[in-house]
Amino acid sequence: MPIPAPTLYPPFNIVRLSHVEYRVTNLAASRAFYVDTLGLQVTDEDDRTIYLRAMEERGHHCIVLVQDDTPSVGLLGFKLFDEPDLDKAAAWFADQGLPVDWVERPYQGRTFRTQDPFGIPLEFYARMDRLAPIHQHYKLYKGVKPLRIDHFNMFSADVDASIAFYNTIGFRVTEYTEDAESGKCWAAWMHRKGGVHDVAFTNGRGPRLHHTAFWVPTPLNIIDLLDLMATTGYLANIERGPGRHGISNAFFLYVRDPDGHRIEIYCSDYMTVDPDLEPIKWDLKDPQRQTLWGAPAPRSWFEEGSVFEGAALVDSQLKAQPIIAP
Amino acid sequence: MPIPAPTLYPPFNIVRLSHVEYRVTNLAASRAFYVDTLGLQVTDEDDRTIYLRAMEERGHHCIVLVQDDTPSVGLLGFKLFDEPDLDKAAAWFADQGLPVDWVERPYQGRTFRTQDPFGIPLEFYARMDRLAPIHQHYKLYKGVKPLRIDHFNMFSADVDASIAFYNTIGFRVTEYTEDAESGKCWAAWMHRKGGVHDVAFTNGRGPRLHHTAFWVPTPLNIIDLLDLMATTGYLANIERGPGRHGISNAFFLYVRDPDGHRIEIYCSDYMTVDPDLEPIKWDLKDPQRQTLWGAPAPRSWFEEGSVFEGAALVDSQLKAQPIIAP
Amino acid sequence: MPIPAPTLYPPFNIVRLSHVEYRVTNLAASRAFYVDTLGLQVTDEDDRTIYLRAMEERGHHCIVLVQDDTPSVGLLGFKLFDEPDLDKAAAWFADQGLPVDWVERPYQGRTFRTQDPFGIPLEFYARMDRLAPIHQHYKLYKGVKPLRIDHFNMFSADVDASIAFYNTIGFRVTEYTEDAESGKCWAAWMHRKGGVHDVAFTNGRGPRLHHTAFWVPTPLNIIDLLDLMATTGYLANIERGPGRHGISNAFFLYVRDPDGHRIEIYCSDYMTVDPDLEPIKWDLKDPQRQTLWGAPAPRSWFEEGSVFEGAALVDSQLKAQPIIAP
Amino acid sequence: MPIPAPTLYPPFNIVRLSHVEYRVTNLAASRAFYVDTLGLQVTDEDDRTIYLRAMEERGHHCIVLVQDDTPSVGLLGFKLFDEPDLDKAAAWFADQGLPVDWVERPYQGRTFRTQDPFGIPLEFYARMDRLAPIHQHYKLYKGVKPLRIDHFNMFSADVDASIAFYNTIGFRVTEYTEDAESGKCWAAWMHRKGGVHDVAFTNGRGPRLHHTAFWVPTPLNIIDLLDLMATTGYLANIERGPGRHGISNAFFLYVRDPDGHRIEIYCSDYMTVDPDLEPIKWDLKDPQRQTLWGAPAPRSWFEEGSVFEGAALVDSQLKAQPIIAP
Repeated sequence: MPIPAPTLYPPFNIVRLSHVEYRVTNLAASRAFYVDTLGLQVTDEDDRTIYLRAMEERGHHCIVLVQDDTPSVGLLGFKLFDEPDLDKAAAWFADQGLPVDWVERPYQGRTFRTQDPFGIPLEFYARMDRLAPIHQHYKLYKGVKPLRIDHFNMFSADVDASIAFYNTIGFRVTEYTEDAESGKCWAAWMHRKGGVHDVAFTNGRGPRLHHTAFWVPTPLNIIDLLDLMATTGYLANIERGPGRHGISNAFFLYVRDPDGHRIEIYCSDYMTVDPDLEPIKWDLKDPQRQTLWGAPAPRSWFEEGSVFEGAALVDSQLKAQPIIAP
Repeated sequence: MPIPAPTLYPPFNIVRLSHVEYRVTNLAASRAFYVDTLGLQVTDEDDRTIYLRAMEERGHHCIVLVQDDTPSVGLLGFKLFDEPDLDKAAAWFADQGLPVDWVERPYQGRTFRTQDPFGIPLEFYARMDRLAPIHQHYKLYKGVKPLRIDHFNMFSADVDASIAFYNTIGFRVTEYTEDAESGKCWAAWMHRKGGVHDVAFTNGRGPRLHHTAFWVPTPLNIIDLLDLMATTGYLANIERGPGRHGISNAFFLYVRDPDGHRIEIYCSDYMTVDPDLEPIKWDLKDPQRQTLWGAPAPRSWFEEGSVFEGAALVDSQLKAQPIIAP
Repeated sequence: MPIPAPTLYPPFNIVRLSHVEYRVTNLAASRAFYVDTLGLQVTDEDDRTIYLRAMEERGHHCIVLVQDDTPSVGLLGFKLFDEPDLDKAAAWFADQGLPVDWVERPYQGRTFRTQDPFGIPLEFYARMDRLAPIHQHYKLYKGVKPLRIDHFNMFSADVDASIAFYNTIGFRVTEYTEDAESGKCWAAWMHRKGGVHDVAFTNGRGPRLHHTAFWVPTPLNIIDLLDLMATTGYLANIERGPGRHGISNAFFLYVRDPDGHRIEIYCSDYMTVDPDLEPIKWDLKDPQRQTLWGAPAPRSWFEEGSVFEGAALVDSQLKAQPIIAP
Repeated sequence: MPIPAPTLYPPFNIVRLSHVEYRVTNLAASRAFYVDTLGLQVTDEDDRTIYLRAMEERGHHCIVLVQDDTPSVGLLGFKLFDEPDLDKAAAWFADQGLPVDWVERPYQGRTFRTQDPFGIPLEFYARMDRLAPIHQHYKLYKGVKPLRIDHFNMFSADVDASIAFYNTIGFRVTEYTEDAESGKCWAAWMHRKGGVHDVAFTNGRGPRLHHTAFWVPTPLNIIDLLDLMATTGYLANIERGPGRHGISNAFFLYVRDPDGHRIEIYCSDYMTVDPDLEPIKWDLKDPQRQTLWGAPAPRSWFEEGSVFEGAALVDSQLKAQPIIAP
């Protein structure tokens, strides 16, 4: 299936991805990972929940950690442009026959919960409590110096269908991988906020969350994190990298939190605000697609992901296989 | 004058700043500076004109160098979202009583030339020839490794009036400097594309172009450029920096081209896509506003700029003075 | 006076500079500066004295802070190769008619105190307590990530005489500045350990300690320190930089401790172990000597320094003047 | 076998490793690799031979490329302190029953060729032509910006014996890997010039040259080289890295030249001039020894190396195996 033409005038205006809720089995262990190691800032916490933001963010939270019995992903949050967009969005999802539940979320204005056609729980809001800037409070910077949440990457059992849906609500494809044999998309990167992606979809048993990514200042911050994790008991949590992606051109590292939720540390992709930006096509058989420098990803990176609360899993029917590290 | 509320639904959709036309008196000398030293890529040239793009840009040009008898700025170019926006924009400018001339520009689609109320020549288009990506052609990277044009900064004899005009057409203030005594704005930074600015205005005899800025990957590229310029005959062209701006938090360097046109090299500001992002206010008397680390800018930086073709100059009536290096 | 030929077989073997004793008037304030801000590690402390080491050092201390009524420098320490060298050195200083006092120094083996002919208090030892490596304890790294003490720079009222003396005991000139008019040396950089210098001398009222330098991994660590100091109350302690020295080619920053003792943060000079390395000569009138990028140093940098305990000050007779920032 | 005590007063004074002669089968292809890609500078060349130096070196050559029918290593060169050391060294090798041949080498003073007891061809000299400094000719920097040759690493069939021999002539062990089962050394790093090593030995069929290493300014230069090689036809020449070694703490990358000779790009180890520096011991079973971040090296890295001209190969008798990437 070819990449659809971008939806220049979508039914409502999504500004960007906003936040993720991770259910975790040991809140103290997760705090040590996200706060003491990655360097995210706590904006509120009690014995069941921790709210976190990155250094340049002024919204109240980009990650919500919630204590639970088993690890999962409670929701993916998106910020809409304005309150009228919120009502347009709610109406649009209802029109699609998808559930729309208005929910109370601390530190957020009016918020509704829905899901995409594949079962991913989505929440939309237009206004979240704004906090005072801390990006020049350099004493607070630590760990990998995370600046902002960058994107969500999800396993999809039908990437073409995922592209079609998210394209309809205004996400534009910037790069994609084609399985030349079947002519189907293996993976796609789609943006709203002007980088390579806010959301991406990769072929596999889904829906599952592959990873959430954070933007950092330079590759040296990623090297600092590797040194820190390697010498503070997190050696086994380093999964892949550092390296440069062929797709997106970003410098990357993948690490796993104590429950196995995958976090990408990411910098230096490119600006994509032009509405006539041509998508870049890659071939599934090109090893530089994954890593420009040639190293394949490990099997765990292709197979493991976080389940979404309440989403039924479906296997992909694609038979093609990426190159996996032996 | 307080900062006006942002125009959430402007009369037409400007995507971003696009390009500048610099009139230069020695095209070969300018080529040595922009191509061999800064590292911009030539996309077309003849004996009167050179078209340049930066490494991640796919539009045909971000700088057009034109041989002339005296140095000046021929135009500031902006990209609109779509062809309908182009017609809406032309109508809007005509409604303001501003001139609208449809012009032929190589490598661009329909383009009109107008000016802002202060005389700055502006050109708008929606489509420019798109070139194949070169951001992964690493053999081409040289000089400061310029990735993309980032912003224009202009002297304005009435910053409040400049803010009001550009706010009306959708630029949003992200940071500004107030002259506490007069209650007027000394300077303002306004964006469309999601960084701290596409355009900025600084108090002074105007309108003049203070500088055009290019985004680079890391501060180390700026250090590389300093080393290169200092040892290839461009020592006197280094005007200010390196340093970190208080405003924008960006790491910066200012250099002058052979005709004195000022170029800023810039990296690491922050994302501003949220429509409810609160502007950050600075006091004119705060030295960290200019340089977070305290060093004041030299007198030339406050006083010298490039004239716009055909624009009459007006002195500012503000009496306040910034801190200038002795 | 020409630079003397290096002493290939000196009377005793100095391995490297080792440590400095700073007398400070507020030990808590100094601790906040050296430990919490620069990131040196405390190896011992009581209410009168703090011992510090840098991250890759295994000797017990590179700085000793001692509470006192007025700021001064108690001693410059040097490490000798072996115990026999210590006896040869003591005999040699005694032969020159210089005082030799065997002193007790915590954490050091046999140590004697002497002075150079100009009154600088020097202490020599061969063995200091060795501590376990911490260079891979990345959790401890903070501030500017100081790796090791690099050099001492001193004001000398007669640089040629200082060069002659230190050359005799094996320090080799790597670079020097000549005052072309008088034919005298304005400044010289002399090494033992294989970098551009362990000691340097600059013309001026002396003897005084101009600064002690620390080596850090990359220029980005220096930028981090600037950001930190600028936002934690140390703005006025930033004196000069960042920049690249023409001499030594190092990337540098000069900061002042709470008592005004000057610390240089320094990286990326070059290896000088070849005994036939030719000294590089600079002209006092060449502004790139100071800063390759052209910015002159401020007046304080040329005029202020720390007095040595017990050393009488003498004015230089040279009339030439360096270029000073206006 | 325990690590022997360092030889504090060796029979002659080796300053540092100096140069390597690589026999290559396609001089033009090798030039494209070493000059156009790595960025070494040509100091002389004809149709059979190319002499290269790195950016901060003032000696005439650190690599000599010689056209030949099959790839091999012609010699490892070392610089002695002074001419008397050259005679002492020649006498000492002769006393050991090792061959001593005085040879003519362009751009070098008196030079003799010998071999170590395991057949590695060694050449010693005290003086080589000195060239004008180019370390501030920033226009010349390209590729990975190689600053200086750093070390040789060799396969040895009996690492304990290699340590014993090189220790006798003054090389000091800084770090080593023990095979706990046999009590034998698996690998050792030994220095003269004040870094972690000038020479290293790794267990394996030997003698063979494992790699020659070059020092570069920062990890970002290594990332630049990866990007360049990955997009200019050298993808298959990237063998291992980037990463941080546990041993030496250096940031590294291994690449292969067109004949398979292995080059390490290396930065940020630590200073080792103290004669009482304690060697750091690692266990062969510790995966962080190889790469602090945990990734094992590929099989080729453990098994492939360059043969020395005229040296007979012997298998190691050690049965222990390092951890190899699957």
